[in-house]
Amino acid sequence: MAERIDDLQCNGYKIIQDTEGFCFGMDAVLLANYALSAVTNETRLLDLCSGTGIVPLLIAAKTDCKELLGLELQKDVSDMAKRSIEMNHEEYRMKMIQGDLKEIKEMKLASSMNVVTCNPPYMSAGLLNTTDRKLISRHEVMCTLGDVCYAAAYALKSNGKFYMVHRPNRLVDIFNELRRVHLEPKRMRLIYPYEYSEANMVLLEAVKGGKTQLIVEKPLIVYKDKNIYTDELLSIYAVS
Amino acid sequence: MAERIDDLQCNGYKIIQDTEGFCFGMDAVLLANYALSAVTNETRLLDLCSGTGIVPLLIAAKTDCKELLGLELQKDVSDMAKRSIEMNHEEYRMKMIQGDLKEIKEMKLASSMNVVTCNPPYMSAGLLNTTDRKLISRHEVMCTLGDVCYAAAYALKSNGKFYMVHRPNRLVDIFNELRRVHLEPKRMRLIYPYEYSEANMVLLEAVKGGKTQLIVEKPLIVYKDKNIYTDELLSIYAVS
Repeated sequence: MAERIDDLQCNGYKIIQDTEGFCFGMDAVLLANYALSAVTNETRLLDLCSGTGIVPLLIAAKTDCKELLGLELQKDVSDMAKRSIEMNHEEYRMKMIQGDLKEIKEMKLASSMNVVTCNPPYMSAGLLNTTDRKLISRHEVMCTLGDVCYAAAYALKSNGKFYMVHRPNRLVDIFNELRRVHLEPKRMRLIYPYEYSEANMVLLEAVKGGKTQLIVEKPLIVYKDKNIYTDELLSIYAVS
Repeated sequence: MAERIDDLQCNGYKIIQDTEGFCFGMDAVLLANYALSAVTNETRLLDLCSGTGIVPLLIAAKTDCKELLGLELQKDVSDMAKRSIEMNHEEYRMKMIQGDLKEIKEMKLASSMNVVTCNPPYMSAGLLNTTDRKLISRHEVMCTLGDVCYAAAYALKSNGKFYMVHRPNRLVDIFNELRRVHLEPKRMRLIYPYEYSEANMVLLEAVKGGKTQLIVEKPLIVYKDKNIYTDELLSIYAVS
């Protein structure tokens, strides 16, 4: 392990990451930002596939969320997240659970959450068979999209909101799996690297037991020119 | 009926429309344009919910498509389309069928088409109960989204392509209905009136028996300023 401490550029918050493992990217930042509107001082939030805890840490830094739980399968990654929680003095409302989301029913979380977030592994596992940390973060080795949606639906209260970032090429699967567990997609925002390129990320809000009606929000463009962020991206990353 | 003849601004083609009925809009023009790439001189094309035949007329004006069929339920509208076909001297390859797409199995069209297009009624019928022509064109009074997808899948050859324009708020339903009949969504383009507004139309390409993998193409922005089309919209509408 080669750990480093990164500044989150937000209220002085920091995170511990392993430079040889999976480090958080723009998707985690966009997901945390997308979920902000649902968070109040009464919110209980669960982050699935939480990794080093980047999503709940960012949300903690920016809101007065009442309670934040992270669920992460890998023990060494979960331990890093626990140390990040202590380093940021967030023990009073934030907790990491080390465990498998396929065993969500054993965790006493049924219908208890207002918000669930997830930045899941994007790629189908295919023929992969490995215990490598980066691979577990990126491929559906240990959990499928269906497992993630089931766990989210199980933990959410009725009308609770699920936020996920994913790849657009899985969108048909995503809509199918969400509806299968009665998480109805209500808002979607597509992320295009440039205004003239294909979308490479998608942000989704689904509501437990929601009615059928999807809003496709304005496009989120990342770069206005090579290596130059758009104003909206800058505002999402802005030091606050 | 208050008929008028409109110039399609394309190779001198014209269309007969009823000013008191449903007149074609930008959605039909965008749909015809989206399907162009699949059309060769070997293509047999069927347009469902064909109305006055605007989509096959535009495709005929722009390609050497081998055969174009339109299917339309309403007799008076279908008759207008037949007269448009004659007026444009397209009888040698274009034909209107007056009939109900729910009876597609009676029409000897099984697995016969390379391309199917459809600009269906967008809105759920709800409690509507009417025979009004405009309402039939806009609401699912006479056929549902599921009926449309079934008819498209039935008429397409294996690997044939289905093109549809619809409203983004129905996207979850659309993906579900398409996959139910083994039409896999492969390409999607969202249409945003302005770069800062929600999407109000969606273009889809689905392939009969296709593999799971969706490409979300670059956004299609209609206006760059109030009443000023973007360059891409102008090029789609360009006189040719």
